[in-house]
Amino acid sequence: MPDSKTPVTVLGLGMMGTALASALLRAGHPVTVWNRSAARTGPLVAQGARPADSPADAVAASPLVVVCLLANDNVADVLDALGDRISGRTLVNLTNGTPAQARELAARAAEQGASYLDGGIMAVPQMIAGPHAYVLYSGDEKAYETHRDTLAVFGGTRWTGTDPGLAALYDLSLLTGMYGMVIGVMQAYALVRTEGIGAEDFSELLVPWVTAMLAGAPEWGRAVDSGRHLTDVSSMAVNHAAFPNFLATFRDQGVSGELFAPFQAILDRAMEQGHAADGLSRIADLLKLDHQNA
Amino acid sequence: MPDSKTPVTVLGLGMMGTALASALLRAGHPVTVWNRSAARTGPLVAQGARPADSPADAVAASPLVVVCLLANDNVADVLDALGDRISGRTLVNLTNGTPAQARELAARAAEQGASYLDGGIMAVPQMIAGPHAYVLYSGDEKAYETHRDTLAVFGGTRWTGTDPGLAALYDLSLLTGMYGMVIGVMQAYALVRTEGIGAEDFSELLVPWVTAMLAGAPEWGRAVDSGRHLTDVSSMAVNHAAFPNFLATFRDQGVSGELFAPFQAILDRAMEQGHAADGLSRIADLLKLDHQNA
Repeated sequence: MPDSKTPVTVLGLGMMGTALASALLRAGHPVTVWNRSAARTGPLVAQGARPADSPADAVAASPLVVVCLLANDNVADVLDALGDRISGRTLVNLTNGTPAQARELAARAAEQGASYLDGGIMAVPQMIAGPHAYVLYSGDEKAYETHRDTLAVFGGTRWTGTDPGLAALYDLSLLTGMYGMVIGVMQAYALVRTEGIGAEDFSELLVPWVTAMLAGAPEWGRAVDSGRHLTDVSSMAVNHAAFPNFLATFRDQGVSGELFAPFQAILDRAMEQGHAADGLSRIADLLKLDHQNA
Repeated sequence: MPDSKTPVTVLGLGMMGTALASALLRAGHPVTVWNRSAARTGPLVAQGARPADSPADAVAASPLVVVCLLANDNVADVLDALGDRISGRTLVNLTNGTPAQARELAARAAEQGASYLDGGIMAVPQMIAGPHAYVLYSGDEKAYETHRDTLAVFGGTRWTGTDPGLAALYDLSLLTGMYGMVIGVMQAYALVRTEGIGAEDFSELLVPWVTAMLAGAPEWGRAVDSGRHLTDVSSMAVNHAAFPNFLATFRDQGVSGELFAPFQAILDRAMEQGHAADGLSRIADLLKLDHQNA
């Protein structure tokens, strides 16, 4: 039956796990679900999922096992409980975690005879199976090729490499970019509010401005890749001269400067180390720790 | 001669001052220029500018005086040197500075009989007079209306209010948003480079991702304006649970976490203060210092 859909087991039914299982059901896959507290299975069973009493019972039903738990410690516990009952199956771990954790879980899964894929979901649960969701994968490339069509149910699929830690690294790096943006937006909102300016109104200026500046990111990337940071647009010296005005204004307006004080420190370090004529891309280099001293 | 162009004096011929004077010349304005070191006047004189020997000589030539120096201390010195020779003229200060500095200079200008406009240039010199440059203005609204057509030579004009500090506040707030984005991009680049991933290649994922997340900014703004931060998308609890993975990954990969350590501290504070169910917009409120203790 080449057109039959792969049975899938989903372990973990938080908001994300539920969204993943629901998308598989809508796409016509036989879906078996397990969650530590069984109450969560109800809505999915109503959509046609089969509830399992244990992880072992759940994984027995499917060659493809998707796990989405709160943390990778929980994934390790489930792997321990499964022993070699996971053998011969593909484990796709979509739990948030670090590259080091992904590498460790991949090694454990291999010991237990399973193929391991790690994934980083670039979406909130509401976006799953929608046009803007995608998932980064790394690990066992053969397992990825075998199950790619099924995985595409969740959204776009993007291969990052055979090192199982890479999907988490890409995921964390993208989210790091987002957190920086959040830091900037929140500080800006706190600042305009001190003069009674509406933050939503201000966003009409802020969003196009930050979007326009973000267009410089590929050029900064080229500078980081090449190690050549000289610029004729916005030098470290210019930014270093201007930034005390920012910290002074935060203070004058009664806004905490705590999120930006380390940025001043790194601008200071750039100047001390002779990078006055470099652009801000130099900062990516300055963040590299000397591994000898780390 | 209603169609004659207003004569303009430009004080300060750094990269930005030179771009401003050059744009005025191209638009057909009689332009008088002065710079502390006279060598900078050469290229503009070649384009038709008249060089002046002193600020007093320079301002005598024009009803509209644009000043763009390294810092507002320099503007204060020039105002001192001018005394009441600036009387009856409009001073447009496009020097980078703080709202408090702008308010002080507005008061000095008023004492010396001048109308004062403060401006924040949202562009690099290369963008002046181009389609994407704009300048934020605040201060003497009548002077703004009188000279708006001339000021439009530099790019779009945007009025922020009669408080002379507002243009600087908007300017600094927009740049603060940009600096946050830069922090995120640089940290992400440092992280991907540890695995040999090209930063420019990575920007192809990063730019669309951060742009998409930035689309949430108006909604965060509404939350900040209303003080209602409850969310069903990405709660403080979820971010607080995930962020230690980021700091651990920075450490594991040999990247400094210094730019993001304060973000962990503010997430901790949000949880301690009972904001677990709020969205990240709560951060803007948490940055407000108690003015009593500030």
